[in-house]
Amino acid sequence: MKGLSRKIYLEMQPPTEEDNRSDAERILNKLDEKGYTAKLNLSVLRKLYPICERADYQVTVSVAWNGTEWIAVDLEPGNTAANHYGLAVDLGSTTVSAQLICCETGKLQAQATVSNHQIKYGTDILTRIFYCKDQPEHLEEIRIATVSTIRECLQQLEAQTGIPAASCIQMVVAGNTTMIHFLIGMDPFCIFSSPYAVHQNRPGFLPGQELGIPISGYVFLVPSKSNYLGGDIISGMIATELYRKDEISVFFDIGTNGELVIGNKEFLLCGAGAAGPALEGGVVRTGMRAEAGAVDSVKIDGTRILCHVIGGGTAKGICGSGIIDLLAELFLHGWIDFRGRLQIEKGEPISIGDNNELRVQYSENLFFYQSDIDEFLRTKAAAYTMVSYMLKETGISMEDVSNFYVAGAFGTHVNKESAITIGLYPDIDRERLINAGNTSLEGASQLLLNLEIQKQIDPILDHMVYIQFGAVTDFLQMMVAAQAIPHTDLSLFPSVPDKLSVFRNFNK
Amino acid sequence: MKGLSRKIYLEMQPPTEEDNRSDAERILNKLDEKGYTAKLNLSVLRKLYPICERADYQVTVSVAWNGTEWIAVDLEPGNTAANHYGLAVDLGSTTVSAQLICCETGKLQAQATVSNHQIKYGTDILTRIFYCKDQPEHLEEIRIATVSTIRECLQQLEAQTGIPAASCIQMVVAGNTTMIHFLIGMDPFCIFSSPYAVHQNRPGFLPGQELGIPISGYVFLVPSKSNYLGGDIISGMIATELYRKDEISVFFDIGTNGELVIGNKEFLLCGAGAAGPALEGGVVRTGMRAEAGAVDSVKIDGTRILCHVIGGGTAKGICGSGIIDLLAELFLHGWIDFRGRLQIEKGEPISIGDNNELRVQYSENLFFYQSDIDEFLRTKAAAYTMVSYMLKETGISMEDVSNFYVAGAFGTHVNKESAITIGLYPDIDRERLINAGNTSLEGASQLLLNLEIQKQIDPILDHMVYIQFGAVTDFLQMMVAAQAIPHTDLSLFPSVPDKLSVFRNFNK
Repeated sequence: MKGLSRKIYLEMQPPTEEDNRSDAERILNKLDEKGYTAKLNLSVLRKLYPICERADYQVTVSVAWNGTEWIAVDLEPGNTAANHYGLAVDLGSTTVSAQLICCETGKLQAQATVSNHQIKYGTDILTRIFYCKDQPEHLEEIRIATVSTIRECLQQLEAQTGIPAASCIQMVVAGNTTMIHFLIGMDPFCIFSSPYAVHQNRPGFLPGQELGIPISGYVFLVPSKSNYLGGDIISGMIATELYRKDEISVFFDIGTNGELVIGNKEFLLCGAGAAGPALEGGVVRTGMRAEAGAVDSVKIDGTRILCHVIGGGTAKGICGSGIIDLLAELFLHGWIDFRGRLQIEKGEPISIGDNNELRVQYSENLFFYQSDIDEFLRTKAAAYTMVSYMLKETGISMEDVSNFYVAGAFGTHVNKESAITIGLYPDIDRERLINAGNTSLEGASQLLLNLEIQKQIDPILDHMVYIQFGAVTDFLQMMVAAQAIPHTDLSLFPSVPDKLSVFRNFNK
Repeated sequence: MKGLSRKIYLEMQPPTEEDNRSDAERILNKLDEKGYTAKLNLSVLRKLYPICERADYQVTVSVAWNGTEWIAVDLEPGNTAANHYGLAVDLGSTTVSAQLICCETGKLQAQATVSNHQIKYGTDILTRIFYCKDQPEHLEEIRIATVSTIRECLQQLEAQTGIPAASCIQMVVAGNTTMIHFLIGMDPFCIFSSPYAVHQNRPGFLPGQELGIPISGYVFLVPSKSNYLGGDIISGMIATELYRKDEISVFFDIGTNGELVIGNKEFLLCGAGAAGPALEGGVVRTGMRAEAGAVDSVKIDGTRILCHVIGGGTAKGICGSGIIDLLAELFLHGWIDFRGRLQIEKGEPISIGDNNELRVQYSENLFFYQSDIDEFLRTKAAAYTMVSYMLKETGISMEDVSNFYVAGAFGTHVNKESAITIGLYPDIDRERLINAGNTSLEGASQLLLNLEIQKQIDPILDHMVYIQFGAVTDFLQMMVAAQAIPHTDLSLFPSVPDKLSVFRNFNK
């Protein structure tokens, strides 16, 4: 592993009157011999004595890359080169995940996931942003909450492995632009307001101690492309290697926001939209996150709607994957038409609720309303249109797409078939539809373990071309067409009529 | 001035939707245009907002050289490029002197001199070293005392100029190896114990904040050559430019220790000895530092000894320059012979004191004893022999020496003629005998103001060859010859017989 840090065991001769070079010089000369032109930081200078003398000049030096040069950041007696650890962090606005990784072997030692402590300042990002807009004390509260979330991860990792953060050298953090602004202690209001120029997008390597993170080396903050395309997406590019492939891929990260990249080693088109919250269940009346009590998968058996509830027990609401299943099943059984309109005569659970609004009861006391369906379809249309608009821009058809990566927790929960049925995912070979998982965390870990990947960041950022969807006139037209289930142009979804024929006579 | 820091005024366009580069990128691109490839430190990242916006993107960036690259360490609204300050410090074991310098013009703004707070842990260096040997808590006390001494200087400078340290960017500190170990917080016992390998000798640039010094940039610690040849001497080389001259010079720094360099652009021989304390009055019974109450110059008028007292009033003791005058006058008037023996029959102030020891009363109730004279002559012999031994080593005669620099406070107080009379200074053209003043401070200020000088440090260190006098057999023989006044070989001091003939019949 040739990552962002090295632990180097040095066997040196103790000083004599003939060779009375300083301890520091002795170490630097030896590192130089081994190919590392380094400097010693203050902490190592202070450790030189008595460590060198007591260890008879057999010591292990931790060197950390600071973006420009190697800095010796720790010194231990004896040979501890095998105990070489680093940290990768996905700084999500909802959850923060961290991995403690052995940087000698690349082996994952432990993983921790923690709720972002920022949530007490607002479940959605905008509330948090407004909370600290031009309020330095509030910004500082949120900065501290951010750091304390990471520190909680570090404590969990230590509890699991016995390895304290202080013996980790480097940390790579991937997060969206807002999260990185918060971690540094910068007002992120700029991200959501015209002209959408952020305060910083490439903070690079900052000393852990300065950020309040108790590692010996640096925190590398994965750069962002723009306000809506954060380090989490750049990290996803690295994890999927999309930017270095001959074939064209689509990368779709559905989280709090929806971010999209289409491209290969020649080009990278990207865009972002507020697709996320709706798809995750954020805008429907009984929607909730994919946590205990959420309906996460649905089947219709005859006249009954069967739900799977996370953690078992009574359902409290429905999460994104549940909604997608529900709509697919409603459609396949003819309980909604291709416009998503509930067919009261088709299913017993369909009834008329408040304000004369149609609704379907999917679980005890839980209803999915016509307006929820409409809202969800608008969101799925927006998401699908982001992809198809971009393909159209590049003159590429869905057939030309080799891989369709769905990143984030969303991808891992959603039933692919249901997502295709409702026209959210494209109707392509199923093996080309890849649930890529937490690519932000995966990319961070790759960055930690391979210094060479640093060189890839510039080309990625340079190649990325951001498409502002809102500014595009035919986007809306395309979106209207995509609000049908699966789409007004059925030729785009060839497998859906086959599925329908199983359940009902599609040709009526 | 192209020193270790720059203040650069940037006029930028505010972001638009067409050009929505981040504030950070905007600054870095502009700096790049001006020839500075830089990074922003955390403190500047945090200041980007609201400074950039409120100043309509007309800002001044402070960039600091960290030994490898430029780091933006401060950001101010508007054009403050003219308010560009830095600090030079001579970290002496007795007194610490600091200068606040305008880095645009090179103009000295103010100077402060403060007693080293370490003195409470021992007036001499060895006491302080033993106090913290293998006692990290004691070492920390001395480190804090060192930092607080510098901070006291900074407060004085602020009081004089209204410029706080926080608006200074860089600081250059020159001090002997022990002082630099203390400032960093490193046990300096190594400096005085075999094999004389120090813990570090080139700490380089360290962030001011980490050292506890409230500047925005870095503290550059002038490297040392070896245990006894510290950064103060390297700084002296820079101040005198001795290392780049064709002619041969002698550099003699008489402070707590005596350090000597002889050379030119071809070679640099150097050595050190415990010459200092005695010459400064440290080993004679009524000796004291050159402060209020000290006799600093002496004349004999007939049978009376006339003293000048620093600050006026009654004399409390005698300092180095006073002793040298006293001995020269005693010798010229025949009150002591060439071996320094008091001639009781020659002068009324000479009497017999305790233990039957001869003594001379130089002021009310103040006596200089025969044993004081003997001790002082041994020390002056050691100092002179350091010079003559080195010249002998190089095959150079005193005539070949173009400049004889006497550095330190000692040089500025001593009467050259007296020092020649007693054989401490060589008997050469008086204009070649240069009182160089505080060359440690002067070199530090040059290093602050001229980045190019950094490149000179390596050649200086590489060229310096250290001569261990104690290890040399004929050194002692030479020293015995040098204990006479001015020397057993009178041909070395041709002007002294002429002086004598004025006062007494030398050929008697």
